[in-house]
Amino acid sequence: MLPAFFCFKSILINFTKKKNVVMDLNEFRRHGHELIEWMADYFENIENFPVKSRVSPGDIIKKLPENAPLQAESFDSIMEDFNNIIIPGITHWQHPGWHGYFTANNSYPSILAEMLTSTLGAQCMSWLTSPAATELEERVMEWIAKMIGLPAEFTGVIQDTASTATLVSLLTAREKATGMGINSNGFYDLKPFSIYCSTEAHSSIERAVKIAGLGKEYLRKIEVDEFYAMRTDKLLTAIEKDIKDGYEPLAVIAAIGTTGSTAIDPLDEIGRICKKYNIWLHVDAAWAGTALLLPEMRHIIKGIENVDSLIFNPHKWMFTNFDCSAYFVQDKAALIQTFEILPEYLKTKESNAVNNYRDWGIQLGRRFRALKLWFVIRSFGISGLQEKVRNHINWAHEFAGWIEKSKNFELLAPTPLATVCFRLNPETVISEEKLNLINSQLLEAINNTGKIFLSHTKLNGKFTIRFVIGQTNTKHSHISDAWQLINDVSTQFS
Amino acid sequence: MLPAFFCFKSILINFTKKKNVVMDLNEFRRHGHELIEWMADYFENIENFPVKSRVSPGDIIKKLPENAPLQAESFDSIMEDFNNIIIPGITHWQHPGWHGYFTANNSYPSILAEMLTSTLGAQCMSWLTSPAATELEERVMEWIAKMIGLPAEFTGVIQDTASTATLVSLLTAREKATGMGINSNGFYDLKPFSIYCSTEAHSSIERAVKIAGLGKEYLRKIEVDEFYAMRTDKLLTAIEKDIKDGYEPLAVIAAIGTTGSTAIDPLDEIGRICKKYNIWLHVDAAWAGTALLLPEMRHIIKGIENVDSLIFNPHKWMFTNFDCSAYFVQDKAALIQTFEILPEYLKTKESNAVNNYRDWGIQLGRRFRALKLWFVIRSFGISGLQEKVRNHINWAHEFAGWIEKSKNFELLAPTPLATVCFRLNPETVISEEKLNLINSQLLEAINNTGKIFLSHTKLNGKFTIRFVIGQTNTKHSHISDAWQLINDVSTQFS
Repeated sequence: MLPAFFCFKSILINFTKKKNVVMDLNEFRRHGHELIEWMADYFENIENFPVKSRVSPGDIIKKLPENAPLQAESFDSIMEDFNNIIIPGITHWQHPGWHGYFTANNSYPSILAEMLTSTLGAQCMSWLTSPAATELEERVMEWIAKMIGLPAEFTGVIQDTASTATLVSLLTAREKATGMGINSNGFYDLKPFSIYCSTEAHSSIERAVKIAGLGKEYLRKIEVDEFYAMRTDKLLTAIEKDIKDGYEPLAVIAAIGTTGSTAIDPLDEIGRICKKYNIWLHVDAAWAGTALLLPEMRHIIKGIENVDSLIFNPHKWMFTNFDCSAYFVQDKAALIQTFEILPEYLKTKESNAVNNYRDWGIQLGRRFRALKLWFVIRSFGISGLQEKVRNHINWAHEFAGWIEKSKNFELLAPTPLATVCFRLNPETVISEEKLNLINSQLLEAINNTGKIFLSHTKLNGKFTIRFVIGQTNTKHSHISDAWQLINDVSTQFS
Repeated sequence: MLPAFFCFKSILINFTKKKNVVMDLNEFRRHGHELIEWMADYFENIENFPVKSRVSPGDIIKKLPENAPLQAESFDSIMEDFNNIIIPGITHWQHPGWHGYFTANNSYPSILAEMLTSTLGAQCMSWLTSPAATELEERVMEWIAKMIGLPAEFTGVIQDTASTATLVSLLTAREKATGMGINSNGFYDLKPFSIYCSTEAHSSIERAVKIAGLGKEYLRKIEVDEFYAMRTDKLLTAIEKDIKDGYEPLAVIAAIGTTGSTAIDPLDEIGRICKKYNIWLHVDAAWAGTALLLPEMRHIIKGIENVDSLIFNPHKWMFTNFDCSAYFVQDKAALIQTFEILPEYLKTKESNAVNNYRDWGIQLGRRFRALKLWFVIRSFGISGLQEKVRNHINWAHEFAGWIEKSKNFELLAPTPLATVCFRLNPETVISEEKLNLINSQLLEAINNTGKIFLSHTKLNGKFTIRFVIGQTNTKHSHISDAWQLINDVSTQFS
C-alpha cells in the first residue's frame, strides 16, 4: 500500500496543475505584441548569433519530452523552451552573413503579409473558396511576368517550390505529347520518352523524371562546356541518336543559373533545337529568375519565345517568404487538362468563368500566397527590388575581382550573376586531391567562425566554395568583412 | 507645346513622390503592432462579415492596377487596399459559422508560431540547414503517432497536403513493388498495375494515379454499401479478376472518412485482403484522423497494423494552420529510397546520422512546419484538443437528431464523425429531380444569408447538403442558431 503522504501529494499536484484553459483573444493580443518585439529584436540582434547552428545531432531532441502534454501549457513556458531549446538549433538563413546554397529570403513586408495570410487561413483551391486570393494571384502573376520581361503569351501561377513546378512542367509535357494518354492509360505499349538536361542541372529534375514514371535511365545528362553551360552540339547529337534508336524526345530542361555555379545554358540555341524536333522546353531559373528584374540581364533569356514553361522562386532572391515559386507556361490549356479534377463536392456555378487554381498543379489545398508577393512588390517598388539585385550582382563581381587579384585563391567558374565559385590554391600545394581536402577544411573553418555561412559544390571534380550574395539585409560592408575573414581563416591552410 | 503650369505640376509631382525608401526595422516594429491589433480585431469581429464573400467574378481584379508600381509605396496605402479591396473578396474560413467542405482551421497559438516561422525563414531540407526544425519535427511526429494510437512501427513526416502525401504513398508502393525499378527504367515492358479505392474516394487519388503514370483506366473504383463504405466483397472480386486478367494489384486506398459523407471503409477486412495478396494499403484519413485523438473513436482504424501508410491533416481539424499534413509510414526505408537524391551541393558530413527530410517527399525546400504543431499541442494539451473534437462530434449527433425528428428534412448518410449529410424533403414534393433542384436552391439561399456557409455533395444521385462541425471557434450556440436559420430559410421551399 502507498504511504498516506504520497496520496496527499498526488491530490495536491492535481489541484495545482493548470486547468485546461486554452489561449483566449486577450492573451492572443498580448502575446502577439510580445512576439512582434521578439521578431524585431531578432532582426536587430541577428548578427550576434552564429550563422550556422553549433548543435550536434541529437542535442535538440533529447531536450524535448517523449510525450505530448496532457494539459494545456502556458505560452510563456512554450516561449521559454523556444528560446532555450529551439533557437540554439537554428541555422540563421536571414543573417546578412548568409552566403550558402542559395538564399531563401524574407523581408519585413513579406513577414507582415504572412501574418495576415495565417490569420485569414483562407483556402485558395477554387475561386469561390477565396475570390480575392484567386484574383490577386492572377494580377500579381501578370505583374511579375511583365517585371521579368516575359512575352504576353505566358500565364503565371504560384507553385510551392521549383521541385514541384518542374514536375508539373514535365507532366504537362508528357500529357500534351500523348493527348492526355498516360493520365488515362499509363505507359503501356508506348515507346520510351527521352528527356534532356545538362550534367549540372538540379537534382529535382531527376526526381521529377522518376515520379512521372519516365525512368531516370532515359534522362540524358548532356555534357557542359568549360563554363558549365549545356553544349548544344552534344544535345543535338543526343536527340538525333535517340530518334534513330526509337526513343521519343519529350522535354529539355535548360538551366538559367545552375545550382553549382549559376551557369547559363544557351537558351536561344536550345529553343531552336526544341522547336525543330517539337520538344517541350522548360527553363529552371529558380535562383536566377530574379535577375530578370534588371533589363540589362534579360539577354540570359534570349529565345524565351520558344520556351514552354519557366520557373523562378521569389522565395529565393526576391525577398518573399518561402514557399513561393512563380511558374509560367505558354499553353495554359494543356496545364489545366493535365491536372483538372471536378468531383461533385468541388463544383461551383462559377467554375467556367474563373481561375480555379486547384487544377493548375498537384495540390488541391493552397495557401493565400499572392498576398506576400503583393506586399513585397508594392513595399519595395520595382526600382527598389532592382536596386537590391543590381547591388548583389555588382558586389559579386567585385568579390570575384578580389579573388582574381589574390595570390592564394582562384576562380573556378565565371560569375554571371551573384554567385562566386572559388577555391584556395596556395602555391605550395600540388595535388588536386590535397586541394580538395584543404578546401573542404577551409570551408568548415570559415563556417565554424559563425560570422558567415558558405556551402560547396564540385566543378570538374574540384571542391568548390560557393559565395552567394543575395540575403535581404546584406550590405557592402558584409562582403568586404567576409573577404577579410576568408583570408584570415585561410592562413592556416596555405 | 504644353502650358507652363503643366510642366510645373509635373515637377511638383516628382518632388512630392515618395522616395524609394524600403521599410526599416522601426517601421516593421510599428506596423507589426498595428497588424496584431488588426488580427485580434478580425477575430473579435469576424461574425460581422458574411461567411461567403459577396463579390462577383472580376470584382477584385478590376480594382488592382495592371502594372506593378515602380516606386515603393507606403505600408499604410497597402493596408488601405487590403481592407478595401481584398477583405470584401475573402470567404472567411475562420468564421465560427463555417460548415462547408471540411474546415481548414487555425488557432491563436498556431498563428503565433507561424509568425516565428516566417521570421526565422529557415529551410528544413537537411538536418544541417536547420537542426532544430528537423529534430522538432521528429519529436512532434512521435507525439502525434502516440496521440492518435498508431503502433510503434509507424514513422511520421510532415507533408504539405493530403494530395501530395497520397502521391508519395503511391510512388513508394510503385517503387517497393518494382525494386525501385520504375524510378530507374520507367514502365516499359511491365504489366499494368491495378489500384483500388471506393467510388466515394477523394479526387486526389485519381490525380496521384495519373501523375505516377499508372493510368486512371487501372484505378478500380469499388462499389460502396448503403453507408457509402467500400464493399470488401467487391474489392476481393476485383482483385481476383485483375490477377486472372494479368494485372498486378499494387495498392488499395481506404478512406477513413470519405469527403462526401465521412464514411468509414472497413479497414480491418481490407487490411486482411491486402496482406493476403501483398498489396500496399494506404489510408486517407485527411479529415477524420483528428478524431483518433479520442480513444473511443479508435475503432475506426481497427486493423491499422496491416496499413502501410496513413495521412491525416492537422490543418483541417486540429487547429493548425494550413499547410500541415501528418504522413505516417511503416517502411521508412522504402519511402526514403523512393525519393532520395544526394547531389554534391547537398552533401553534409552528418548525412547518415540524421533525418534529411528532403528525401522523405517530393519537395526539396521545406518550411519549419513542426513549430506550429508544437505550439498547438502544448497550448491546448491533449485533453484540450480532445475536448474540442469530442464536442464537435457530440454536437453533430445532436444536429443529426434534430434532422431525424424534423418533418421536412431527412438524413442521407450516417454521422460517424462530425459531418451531417441531409436534405430538405418536404411532403409536398415528389420527384428526385425536383428535390435536387430545391436543395441546391436552398443551399444557395442559406449561404447568401452570410451567417453560415455549407457545401454539398451527391450521394446516390441525391443532392446532399453537408453540415460540417469543426471550426475552432464554433460554439454550441452556433449549431442551434444554424439549425434555426436552416429551418427559417427552408420555409420558402416547402
